[in-house]
Amino acid sequence: MGYRIITVSRQFGSGGRSVARAIAERLGYAYYDKELVKAVALETGFAPEYIEEKGEYAPSNSRLSYAFTGSGMPGVMNGMSAADYLYTMQRRVILDLADRGDCVIVGRCADHILKDRPDTLHVFIHADDAYRCQRIVRLYGETEKSPQKRLDDKDGRRAANYKHFTGEDWGMSRNYDLSLNSGKLGEAACVTVLESIVKASLEQ
Amino acid sequence: MGYRIITVSRQFGSGGRSVARAIAERLGYAYYDKELVKAVALETGFAPEYIEEKGEYAPSNSRLSYAFTGSGMPGVMNGMSAADYLYTMQRRVILDLADRGDCVIVGRCADHILKDRPDTLHVFIHADDAYRCQRIVRLYGETEKSPQKRLDDKDGRRAANYKHFTGEDWGMSRNYDLSLNSGKLGEAACVTVLESIVKASLEQ
Repeated sequence: MGYRIITVSRQFGSGGRSVARAIAERLGYAYYDKELVKAVALETGFAPEYIEEKGEYAPSNSRLSYAFTGSGMPGVMNGMSAADYLYTMQRRVILDLADRGDCVIVGRCADHILKDRPDTLHVFIHADDAYRCQRIVRLYGETEKSPQKRLDDKDGRRAANYKHFTGEDWGMSRNYDLSLNSGKLGEAACVTVLESIVKASLEQ
Repeated sequence: MGYRIITVSRQFGSGGRSVARAIAERLGYAYYDKELVKAVALETGFAPEYIEEKGEYAPSNSRLSYAFTGSGMPGVMNGMSAADYLYTMQRRVILDLADRGDCVIVGRCADHILKDRPDTLHVFIHADDAYRCQRIVRLYGETEKSPQKRLDDKDGRRAANYKHFTGEDWGMSRNYDLSLNSGKLGEAACVTVLESIVKASLEQ
């Protein structure tokens, strides 16, 4: 069974997105990250910025998110919170993209949404805090918040989002086929390992 | 920095031990599993069966384990529980084995004990329950307990042991450099991936 779809989940600052893009290029697979946001925007009418923020970091119990349920979109959200509605639409888009052919999908609980497809390889990229702190400052610059606080905030919200929608603990090995420490192994080695596993699967 | 030491942690029934043995053979590294038990037996005077059972599955709060502290080995255990004493001795043996040269060490919190050594690659092998149930029945036969219960019991006790001695959640990706799903990827592919990563590290 060849791996036609690769989902890549990643700790903030681990370089998981770069690994995902590189592996898509090496394999000639479609790459869905911002593209997925655009597709969901088209389906839902939500602004891309809103989807990008809430699609992976949705609060699970915000009262505000319920407040506009039914107002302006009567019936459409069926009494769901905006976060739940967004997840439902995002899930639909992910299932649809997976059906269209070879691709790499970044984040957004895609590992859980596609967990029963045998042609899918689920990957988690992580790295230690020191490596990630250094990397986010180099790439995104300094902010008022300390780099450590930025990691903790973003990962904490991804974990809460994942727990809410999947019931599982984010970052647990058992949810992925491969988990790789990009800080220790290096991003290039992560790409090489993934490429060789996917290529071997396609040759079988 | 070449990986001279490989620690392999594994879910019960995942074939992690077979992967560990195979990678040691491929690389010509020493393999420590039962051998480690023997070394700890020599150091402590505990029976090998006791070490094998308690070295990975020690209860963290058994009253009985305290009961014989000081009786028969006055002063030796220094008021520690038998489980804590065993961990301390096991830790000492693992640090010593790591100093002796290239090796693969199975289980026993070796990933945590050696986490600060940069020449060490930490691996976790897991697989889904259906794969593991089938595998343990094939290898170890049926018992009165259901295969699922056997998995849950053994993994639960490994997780409790790991939490007690490391403070970390067992099976969390962040504690390992690579986590591999042997059921999905196949044991042979796990060995190939590990071999290529270690060999590449040694060539640098």
